[in-house]
Amino acid sequence: MRYAVLGTGIVGRTVAAKLVSLGHEVVIGTRDPAATLARTEPGETGVGPYAVWQASHPDVALAPFAGAAAAAEVLVNATGGRVSLDALAAADAAHLEGKVLLDIANPLDFSHGFPPSLDPVNTDSLGERIQRTFPGLRVVKSLNTMNCAVMVDPSRVAGEHHVFVSGEDAEAKKTVRELLYSFGWPESSVLDLGGIESARGTEMLLPVWLRLMGTLGHTDFNFHIQGAGGGGAWGGH
Amino acid sequence: MRYAVLGTGIVGRTVAAKLVSLGHEVVIGTRDPAATLARTEPGETGVGPYAVWQASHPDVALAPFAGAAAAAEVLVNATGGRVSLDALAAADAAHLEGKVLLDIANPLDFSHGFPPSLDPVNTDSLGERIQRTFPGLRVVKSLNTMNCAVMVDPSRVAGEHHVFVSGEDAEAKKTVRELLYSFGWPESSVLDLGGIESARGTEMLLPVWLRLMGTLGHTDFNFHIQGAGGGGAWGGH
Repeated sequence: MRYAVLGTGIVGRTVAAKLVSLGHEVVIGTRDPAATLARTEPGETGVGPYAVWQASHPDVALAPFAGAAAAAEVLVNATGGRVSLDALAAADAAHLEGKVLLDIANPLDFSHGFPPSLDPVNTDSLGERIQRTFPGLRVVKSLNTMNCAVMVDPSRVAGEHHVFVSGEDAEAKKTVRELLYSFGWPESSVLDLGGIESARGTEMLLPVWLRLMGTLGHTDFNFHIQGAGGGGAWGGH
Repeated sequence: MRYAVLGTGIVGRTVAAKLVSLGHEVVIGTRDPAATLARTEPGETGVGPYAVWQASHPDVALAPFAGAAAAAEVLVNATGGRVSLDALAAADAAHLEGKVLLDIANPLDFSHGFPPSLDPVNTDSLGERIQRTFPGLRVVKSLNTMNCAVMVDPSRVAGEHHVFVSGEDAEAKKTVRELLYSFGWPESSVLDLGGIESARGTEMLLPVWLRLMGTLGHTDFNFHIQGAGGGGAWGGH
């Protein structure tokens, strides 16, 4: 499969590396590849410069948003949630038409410091906003409720835990489910919450997730809905 | 211990009945006891009239908010989150001074239908607002992230699951912890998230909780933070 991963931060890099390791073709999309490669300072998240990472991941291509999207069958939104709409606009709606977008982003607003608040929130969500703005996209919100290392290696967290899925398009959800299975998520771990409106609920998990990160002092944890049933498949994982 | 449970809905009744069964003295607080007892229509939550429940729970007293608070050592806020501040104002700040308030309420706003939104949310929470408005109270937010049947009987949900605690006062948290243990919560199930600001995070779990209720078709589920450590004590439960 040909994937475009939008966003050059730690989430985009982690997902891109995993997809390449599974044999997919991956292009990371960014606004200006030359500028991305020229950056030498560590980013906001404290990860190293992109060029250093790129050198050790020669199988991952880098392209402008539009070029990455044009070549892709499936897109992954791993941009900062506050710039996702701009990134998708730069990708060009014509290159998005009919495609599946796995939306991992959260609309975290750090403008007032830490902990961040969410915008949009409560009566809207980033997932819904993307779906409304780009009706040709088939948006599936998933994986946004955990650290990126756990996204691509759920076994980092011992025991059963869940990944939520929200979206309007059943076929698109099936595509995302297959991707999740290939990342190591057991079938019983995928909780389909219904339409894209339910992304409000999963994006609103971020404040307690951030607080738990501080309390526990690590990021290898995840939400498990005890009493949701299933779980047998995980035992065989 | 002498408890005042503010609120005559299903949450207040369930907690009051449990406290009485544990040997505590319990007064339920309401705005106007005569009006509460005269109501014959089922309430918003579909529970029966209060008077019918009261008849089968003769050990639970009913009093105006101020009378209930005056007699109590510990208060439980089980009012609707949108009227909690009014209820506490009616209880009279003089009767709240220095007392522990276990705040179970969520600021669910049903004015735009179902699912409800939250108000306050994101940059504030009901727990914080109560603490700010009544600085003499020692507010501990807890138990607000599950159905009331699970609050007082965690064994309804098989396996390990968590109850969060937020608040500024260590002694007040200890009082609430002891209460949780007496309800059947193992020590390892109590996750202290820190100050009352962390109530933002737990109140914001409500939208996904409500969505899960619809998806799963029942309310006997709860959040478990997989990877949070502990869990040994639950095995012996």
